[in-house]
Amino acid sequence: MRVLGVDPGLTRCGLGVVDGSGGRQVRCVAVDVVRSPADVPVEQRLLAVGAVVEEWIARHRPDVVAIERVFSQQNVRTVMGTAQASGVVALLAARAGLPVAFHTPSEVKAAVTGEGRAGKAQVTAMVTRLLGLADAPRPADAADALALAICHAGHARTASAVAAADRPAVTVG
Amino acid sequence: MRVLGVDPGLTRCGLGVVDGSGGRQVRCVAVDVVRSPADVPVEQRLLAVGAVVEEWIARHRPDVVAIERVFSQQNVRTVMGTAQASGVVALLAARAGLPVAFHTPSEVKAAVTGEGRAGKAQVTAMVTRLLGLADAPRPADAADALALAICHAGHARTASAVAAADRPAVTVG
Repeated sequence: MRVLGVDPGLTRCGLGVVDGSGGRQVRCVAVDVVRSPADVPVEQRLLAVGAVVEEWIARHRPDVVAIERVFSQQNVRTVMGTAQASGVVALLAARAGLPVAFHTPSEVKAAVTGEGRAGKAQVTAMVTRLLGLADAPRPADAADALALAICHAGHARTASAVAAADRPAVTVG
Repeated sequence: MRVLGVDPGLTRCGLGVVDGSGGRQVRCVAVDVVRSPADVPVEQRLLAVGAVVEEWIARHRPDVVAIERVFSQQNVRTVMGTAQASGVVALLAARAGLPVAFHTPSEVKAAVTGEGRAGKAQVTAMVTRLLGLADAPRPADAADALALAICHAGHARTASAVAAADRPAVTVG
């Protein structure tokens, strides 16, 4: 199963493609971040995000698109832009005939680290390890997009196993 | 100037097309509401909204698309869906080469009634009067979409004049 994970946003939109399915090693196919400056009109920023998402769907041919579910706990203005970007990604996935899945940040963190309240550094470290990458994906949005894709690929069990093997006494909350 | 006004939403997305520019009578070209049931996946609901928006842009050839700016004061889940729909509308307008304008609910209310805190009934009544419609547009989302289009067309002055002519002693807040 090939998953395109998207951490939606206007300033930075993380994209990560992962191959994998329950029980087997996950593999990183591609990862990048689409950026657009804050002084560009919203519709132009959405256009930029949409163009890259469409290009990635055509180039990488994922089986499914996993998008981070947006909550309104953060800054209101930021959240609205993030939700607008997630709407654009969901639309373009649906237009390409792909199923869309939304995962909450805590689901994603639990899937890759075994802990729903894990910090960004821990998520990045586990993503790097699970995908066998030489370097940690930067910025955090890139790692988050890969984490989403890993989460959707159903690697919760693998992630927990790796974590358990590395840390002597882990309590999974 | 022809304006497509959009009151974004997943359950009900209001669309209204208005012809008009500062100082002349506004005219209603078309008004409708796109509906999608809550049990349909979000991406399918966005697909439905997107298809109608694209069809309306092609059929009515507006010069500009005016979208209600979403705030997160309401129910969090509803607001996220509304923001996602507004992102889809903005993307499709930009892809059609059209400028996009966002107006706050209070800007729209002030433009059609002279009062930023006007109620839904007052907005609907003024939209009906300003456009010379025989019947009030229903539901409220349809009237809101027309109000947005009227607001963008710059009819604040006309609206105030009509209101002032009808009501003997109006204090515009």
